[in-house]
Amino acid sequence: MAGLQRAFLRRSITQSPFSIHQMRGLTLDALNPNFHNVSYAVRGELAIKAEALRDELKDPSNKLPFDKVISSNIGNPQQQGLDQKPITFTRQVAALMEYPELAKLAPNAFPPDVLARAAELLKEIGSIGAYSHSQGVPFIRRNVAKFIEARDGFPSDPQNIFLTGGASAGVSLLINMLISSPSDGILIPIPQYPLYTASLAQHAGRAIPYQLDENHDWSTSPESVQAAVEKALAEGIKPKALVIINPGNPTGALLDEPTMRKLVQLCEENNIVLLADEVYQNNLHSRQEHPFTSFKKVVSTLQSPVPLVSFHSISKGVSGECGRRGGYFELANFRPEIVAMLYKMASVGLCPPLSGQIGVDSMVRPPKLGDASYEQWKSETDSIHAALASRTKLMAERLNKLTGVSCVNSPGAMYLFPKISLSKKARDAAEAAGKVPDAFYSLALLDKTGICVVPGSGFGQKEGEWHYRVTCLCPGVEEYVGKLESFHVEWVEKYGAE
Amino acid sequence: MAGLQRAFLRRSITQSPFSIHQMRGLTLDALNPNFHNVSYAVRGELAIKAEALRDELKDPSNKLPFDKVISSNIGNPQQQGLDQKPITFTRQVAALMEYPELAKLAPNAFPPDVLARAAELLKEIGSIGAYSHSQGVPFIRRNVAKFIEARDGFPSDPQNIFLTGGASAGVSLLINMLISSPSDGILIPIPQYPLYTASLAQHAGRAIPYQLDENHDWSTSPESVQAAVEKALAEGIKPKALVIINPGNPTGALLDEPTMRKLVQLCEENNIVLLADEVYQNNLHSRQEHPFTSFKKVVSTLQSPVPLVSFHSISKGVSGECGRRGGYFELANFRPEIVAMLYKMASVGLCPPLSGQIGVDSMVRPPKLGDASYEQWKSETDSIHAALASRTKLMAERLNKLTGVSCVNSPGAMYLFPKISLSKKARDAAEAAGKVPDAFYSLALLDKTGICVVPGSGFGQKEGEWHYRVTCLCPGVEEYVGKLESFHVEWVEKYGAE
Repeated sequence: MAGLQRAFLRRSITQSPFSIHQMRGLTLDALNPNFHNVSYAVRGELAIKAEALRDELKDPSNKLPFDKVISSNIGNPQQQGLDQKPITFTRQVAALMEYPELAKLAPNAFPPDVLARAAELLKEIGSIGAYSHSQGVPFIRRNVAKFIEARDGFPSDPQNIFLTGGASAGVSLLINMLISSPSDGILIPIPQYPLYTASLAQHAGRAIPYQLDENHDWSTSPESVQAAVEKALAEGIKPKALVIINPGNPTGALLDEPTMRKLVQLCEENNIVLLADEVYQNNLHSRQEHPFTSFKKVVSTLQSPVPLVSFHSISKGVSGECGRRGGYFELANFRPEIVAMLYKMASVGLCPPLSGQIGVDSMVRPPKLGDASYEQWKSETDSIHAALASRTKLMAERLNKLTGVSCVNSPGAMYLFPKISLSKKARDAAEAAGKVPDAFYSLALLDKTGICVVPGSGFGQKEGEWHYRVTCLCPGVEEYVGKLESFHVEWVEKYGAE
Repeated sequence: MAGLQRAFLRRSITQSPFSIHQMRGLTLDALNPNFHNVSYAVRGELAIKAEALRDELKDPSNKLPFDKVISSNIGNPQQQGLDQKPITFTRQVAALMEYPELAKLAPNAFPPDVLARAAELLKEIGSIGAYSHSQGVPFIRRNVAKFIEARDGFPSDPQNIFLTGGASAGVSLLINMLISSPSDGILIPIPQYPLYTASLAQHAGRAIPYQLDENHDWSTSPESVQAAVEKALAEGIKPKALVIINPGNPTGALLDEPTMRKLVQLCEENNIVLLADEVYQNNLHSRQEHPFTSFKKVVSTLQSPVPLVSFHSISKGVSGECGRRGGYFELANFRPEIVAMLYKMASVGLCPPLSGQIGVDSMVRPPKLGDASYEQWKSETDSIHAALASRTKLMAERLNKLTGVSCVNSPGAMYLFPKISLSKKARDAAEAAGKVPDAFYSLALLDKTGICVVPGSGFGQKEGEWHYRVTCLCPGVEEYVGKLESFHVEWVEKYGAE
C-alpha cells in the first residue's frame, strides 16, 4: 500500500458512521423508482446469508452445525463445491484462442481437431481481444444458424441471430424494447424465473401472471393464458408478449407440440410476441419419452406470422459455462427495421464477450464421430446427462416420501420445485420473524444444513401454497438429500405437518 | 443442412417481401419510444458502410480504389488490420485459467510467475465457467482496491468496487439509476462520447450539454459547466450528475488538478453526482508534462462528500482487451443502501464475464521488476505507449498543415478530433445528398480511401463547425496519413476551402 496516506482516516461510507456532509448526499428517494421495485430472489436474502456463512466457516472456531455451504440456489454447475468439470474440448479451443502461440509451443497438449478448430476460429475472428460485430462474429452466427437448421429442419438466417452475454442480457433488451408505456404488460408463467419480473420492474412494465398446473406436472394451459390476456385487457393492461420457459424454470416441465401450437395460435390471435426461453433445451432427463421441440420449429411448421424470439445459452445444458456469459437469441418474423433497431441498441454496448461467443461456437459445433476429441466429449457429456437425470429422479422420489412434501418429478432443466405444507404454528413463527413462510423455512434449512435454496415466493405460487427451488447439481446426492430429509423431519417435529 | 425442409420456402423477413400476415405484425410504433431516440455514431452509418465495403473487397472483380478498409472509427487496437499485439502475460494467465491442465501438460510454455499467478487465481476463483459474485470475484476486487490505493494514496474499499462487462455496462446502469423522472438530466461535455447521449435516450433522461474549449486545447471550464447547470434549472431540468471524460474522448484533453478541484466543488454546491470516465488514464503521450490525476484522489484530498463514480476499463490503455468486456467502477461517498441496490441490479445480470474479470486482475497486477515476465511486459507496453504517442504527434502535425484543417494535439487517449472547414459548395452538396456536412465528408473519405472515421456531428460540436474523430492506432502511419492528406487536397480542389 505504498504511498497510502494513512493519516487520512475518513473511511468508506459502507464502513463508518455518516458525517454530516454525507447525510446531505445522494439518497434512495432521488433515484429511479423502478429500481426499488426490482427483486431477484435467486441472489436475494438467502444467497447473501449463504455468503456470510461461507466466510464464517473460514474461522476455525466457528460453531456452525455444518462444514460447507452448498449453493443450491442457482444453476451454476461449475461452482466450487459442485465441480461439474468443464467440457475439455471447449476449454482447449478457448485456451488456444487466448494464447495462439500454444499451437506451436505445446502442440502435443491438444488433439488435432482442436488445433484445426482454433486455427479456423483465429482466421475468422482475429484476436479475441478485439471488439467483434455488435451482433456477434458473423462466422459464429452462421454456425448457430446451421445448428438451428439441423435441430428444426427449417431455415435460419444469421442476420436474425444476436449473440449475447448470456440469455439474460437478451431478455432484458427485448423487454426494454417491448414495453412502450406503463400500461404495457408481458405474460409470465407462475412460477417463473425472476429475471422476468425483475426486468419488467426495471423497465416499468407490468407482469401479467398465468398459472402453471402443478397437479398436471406443471403443464401450461393455453386456456389459462387466454384468460390472463382477457383479465389484463379488462384492467387496461396491454399484453405485448408471452414468456414461455421450456423446459421450465423452476418446474422442469416440458411442453408437448399440441400445446405449443395452441400457444402460437393464441399469440397470433392476440397479436403478441412470443418470447421462448429455451436455455434448458439440452437438459432432458428422458429424451425418448420427453423430447424437446423448439418454438421456432412450431412457428415454421404452422407458417405462423407470430414474431418469435428464442433464447439459448451456454450456461446450462452440458456446457455449464455460466462464467463466460454467452448465449444468443434468434428472431423470426421481425421486420428488418426492428432488427436494425436491435442492432443499434446492441452496438451501444459494443459487443458480447468474445469468450462467450467462442463458447457458443463450441456448443453448436461439438466434435463429430471420427474426430479425435469425439470419444472424450461423448464420455464427458454422457456422464453429465446421466448424473443430472439420476440425481433429479432420486431427489424427487425421496422428497415425495416426506410428510407434507410433494414434488413433481421433472423431465428437464436442473431443478426441483417441491411443495411444502407449512402448519399454522410454522406460519405464525414466520410472521413473528417478519418472514414469508417459505423464506422462513429456507432460512432455517440454511442455518441447519448449509444448503441454500430459493423460497417459492421468489418465483410466484398460488396464494396459501409454499415451495422451494433446489438445484439437482450436487455430486454427493445421498448425503445431500439426507440433509434435506433430516431437516424436514425435525421441522415437522417442531411445527407439525399441517 | 441435414433435414432441412427445402420445400419450405418462406424466407426470413429480412430477405423477402412481406406477406400480408407479416404486415399485420409487430411495427416500430409499438415499441419503446426511447429506443427511437438512441443514436450511436461510432457504429452508425459509416461503420455499417465500412463493413459492406469490406465484404465487397472480397470479390476479386471489385472496382474499389483501395485494397483494405481501415476502421478508424473505433478504439479497437487488436482488430484485424491494426493488430496491436495483446500483452503476453495477460494471455498466458488467461490460457491457464481456461485449461488449467496446461500447467502440467506444457509447463515450459509459461514463465514461473505466470504459472504461480494462474494457480493463485484458480484457488481463489475456481472454474472461470462458474458465475462469480455479482459484483465480481472478491479477490479481484481487493486487488483493484490495492491498485487504486497505490495510484492515489488514499483508501479504497473492495465493497465499493463493481467489476463490469466493460465500462459501458457500468455507465448505462448508473445513468438508468440516476434518472428518476423525464425532467432529470445529466451534464455531458460537447464533444462527448456518444455512449452518454445513447444511454440517456434509452433511459429517458435529458442531456445537458456543456461546451469544451477547442481554442484552449479542449479544456473544461467550470464556469461553462455552472452556466449549463443554471440554464437547465431555468428550463425545469434537474441536473443529477456531471460526466467528465478524462483523458477526453474524442478530444484527448487532460484536466489539471485546479480545474478538477473546482469541478468537485461545483458538484458539491449543486448537490450532483460526479461520473468520472477515466478509461484512458493509462494512455498518456507525455507523462511528465501531462500526468493523470484521478477524481478519487481529488475528492479524497478535499475530503469532499460528493458522490463519485469512477470508471475504468481493460479495453483501452496498453491492455486493449476490448473483446473480453472487462472493467470496473468504484463508488465513493455512496450510502450503503444505494450500494446494496446496485448490487441487486447487478445480480439480475448474474455476473460480469470472468474473462473480463481476470483481464482486470492482470491490468491491476502486472509483472513486477524481478518477475520472470517483467522484461517482456515492459518491452511490450513501452512499445505500445511509444507508438501511440508518436503516431498521435505525427498525425496532428500533418493534419494541421492542411488547408482548412486545425487539429489540437492531444496529450492522452487514442484519438484526434480535427476541425475541418467546409465550404458553402460542400455544404450545399451535402444537403443535396441528404447528409450532415461532416458525415458527407467522412463518407467521401471512406469511398475514396477505405478509411472509416466518425463525423463530429456524432459527438456534438458548436453550430456551424465540423470535425471528425480518427483513431491513432494504424500501424503504417505514413501511408495512412498520406491518404487522409491526398483525400483532403482533392476535396479542397473540388469544393474550395471556405
